[in-house]
Amino acid sequence: MPSSPIRKLVPFAEHAKKNGAKVIHLNIGQPDIKTPKVALDAVKNNTLEILEYSRTEGSDAYREKLAKYYAKNDILVDAQDIIITTGGSEALAFAMGTIADMGDEIIIPEPFYANYNGFAIAAGVRVVPVESRIEDNFALPPIEEFEKLITPSTRAILICNPGNPTGYLYSQEEIKKLAVIAKKHDLFLIADEVYREFTYEGKEHYSILQEPGLENHAIMVDSVSKRYSMCGARIGCLVTKNKEVIATSMKFAQARLSPPTYAQIASEAALETPQSYFDEVKEEYVSRRDFLVAELSKIEGVKVAKPQGAFYCIAELPVNDTDDFSQWLLEDYRLNGETVMLAPAAGFYSTPGLGKNQVRLAYVLEKESLKRAVAILKEALKSYIG
Amino acid sequence: MPSSPIRKLVPFAEHAKKNGAKVIHLNIGQPDIKTPKVALDAVKNNTLEILEYSRTEGSDAYREKLAKYYAKNDILVDAQDIIITTGGSEALAFAMGTIADMGDEIIIPEPFYANYNGFAIAAGVRVVPVESRIEDNFALPPIEEFEKLITPSTRAILICNPGNPTGYLYSQEEIKKLAVIAKKHDLFLIADEVYREFTYEGKEHYSILQEPGLENHAIMVDSVSKRYSMCGARIGCLVTKNKEVIATSMKFAQARLSPPTYAQIASEAALETPQSYFDEVKEEYVSRRDFLVAELSKIEGVKVAKPQGAFYCIAELPVNDTDDFSQWLLEDYRLNGETVMLAPAAGFYSTPGLGKNQVRLAYVLEKESLKRAVAILKEALKSYIG
Repeated sequence: MPSSPIRKLVPFAEHAKKNGAKVIHLNIGQPDIKTPKVALDAVKNNTLEILEYSRTEGSDAYREKLAKYYAKNDILVDAQDIIITTGGSEALAFAMGTIADMGDEIIIPEPFYANYNGFAIAAGVRVVPVESRIEDNFALPPIEEFEKLITPSTRAILICNPGNPTGYLYSQEEIKKLAVIAKKHDLFLIADEVYREFTYEGKEHYSILQEPGLENHAIMVDSVSKRYSMCGARIGCLVTKNKEVIATSMKFAQARLSPPTYAQIASEAALETPQSYFDEVKEEYVSRRDFLVAELSKIEGVKVAKPQGAFYCIAELPVNDTDDFSQWLLEDYRLNGETVMLAPAAGFYSTPGLGKNQVRLAYVLEKESLKRAVAILKEALKSYIG
Repeated sequence: MPSSPIRKLVPFAEHAKKNGAKVIHLNIGQPDIKTPKVALDAVKNNTLEILEYSRTEGSDAYREKLAKYYAKNDILVDAQDIIITTGGSEALAFAMGTIADMGDEIIIPEPFYANYNGFAIAAGVRVVPVESRIEDNFALPPIEEFEKLITPSTRAILICNPGNPTGYLYSQEEIKKLAVIAKKHDLFLIADEVYREFTYEGKEHYSILQEPGLENHAIMVDSVSKRYSMCGARIGCLVTKNKEVIATSMKFAQARLSPPTYAQIASEAALETPQSYFDEVKEEYVSRRDFLVAELSKIEGVKVAKPQGAFYCIAELPVNDTDDFSQWLLEDYRLNGETVMLAPAAGFYSTPGLGKNQVRLAYVLEKESLKRAVAILKEALKSYIG
């Protein structure tokens, strides 16, 4: 398996910290938002005496409550359409293993979440990228571009909506276009919808599971990680109305026995999180996003795609190689003893050479830190000789 | 992926329960033993405000304490030789993915833990079985039998020690024999040692990691599930002195981000479990084992392999097909309103036709239940017309 450029930077960040530099992490998706108290308390107050296996597909109580949560989001599914997984990661692994054999292909708009590559390699699946462009804000590439790439080995199209790393929110119209080609070519449409709640400017998320007639093609991947700032729980799920997909995914699930029990207690309780929590979190992210996009846009030569969802954005920098620039920032650059860790965007592209002048920024930090990070970036770009 | 014969029985057990029958489960490895209080309390008293990702390889504190636990067991490893996984299951999946490419082969003495098949299929690995026999108590098959099966595609030999489903404990001499062929043919020796503490009659467990000179070949898989009756934690680990194996396994680990955080808190605290807990648990298992083996042996036509470790034993029954017998027990047989659920042993063999007259029994129930279970089995065998 290849190592991502972000991971290659980790030793440089550790070295910088050892030498006394403060590193502001714009590279990671670990929110600084507190986990809802209702979830934390459920675990603290648990009365288990034997920490037993849960059911392979997750506890019935949790799956039933989860179906109600989806219903509130206009996604009509039953408990038996849901398999609880160890993080959204495992749901993705199950989905790929279920629908594809060795050598099969999955089309993914790039840039995409780098770990999709890892799951694809583990499942022997070939990732076929279709380029989305910063000029278009990373909107859905023209459907003809997808159709050109469909071969007899194509099994699915995979999207992340809202997108990591793009922050792009697919419109209902775009989802409908994808649904048409999924049905026409008998493909699965897999959607990673873990950032569902994080949409901005009054835009609404449209799930692939809301699309009429797509029941047998749609596989949704979800997770509690970002929704409730519970990345460490490692609870996600795979949701589909396709009974055959559920049956095959259950065989993968049985091999690993069950998802973690404590984390299911937390996740079930998290469903009781009051709306005020989400309102506050969203307000915070909107304010960070507005600040970050506005400040980055002021830097000469920097181009930013304005995110409408999730908490990432991609920026084009006036450098030739953001791998090198990011390493230089950690190794050689300090502003008042601080520097910034970026995620070079080449790691989010599958096509060699693309994204070399782009970086992904995660706005999961307080505005005060974002402010200093942008200042560092601005000054650093002046000093950097690529 | 194939479905195991045990899982095929589940609907019959559910149907029996719905119709008012009490089903005594001899088929599952979920202990009835309480989880150590020190582990449960650590989770109840946790003060996390953000349930964050842990490190991909598991928390440093836990890995360092775990290395000390191994040292106490004469296994000399450092924290950096350990990757914390989501259950022993994930450690097995990482091990197979790391050492084998599609089409490579792993030799496993059969009968073996049925889920090894699932991980092998997911990794594209071919399982090559070598038969161990009830007549020999399921001891290590002659080394010549292994050597006959080694091809240029062979990557590893995988053992479970003490064995699920056999209860067999490999002797130091047997491990040394395996070490010799692993080195001679440059193979990995993977050992699932999750039942390390459960050895009887004063016998001591000898780990593959204790074997001098095997450092680059030995990959040990471990788990807290059975040791601390914490199956629902989903925490295990992969341990090896081979740096290349660690580096490649880390790439699989990075794709799934991190093992569950709460469960690591419980597992770290579980290392403080007093010795008295293990003494009591072992005493209980010995007494159950002695009772079960003695009582089963009294039934005409029943042959039992006496387990020296873990909490399973395999029995040969005077029937032609234990799949059919087990289903009949659930569907048609009751003694005072009760019946027994068995694990037909054919599911633990890879060679078609083997183990058809054997069952695995897990003695994870109180003696009172075991007593009734044996009585049911004895009477049922009289009534059954195969």
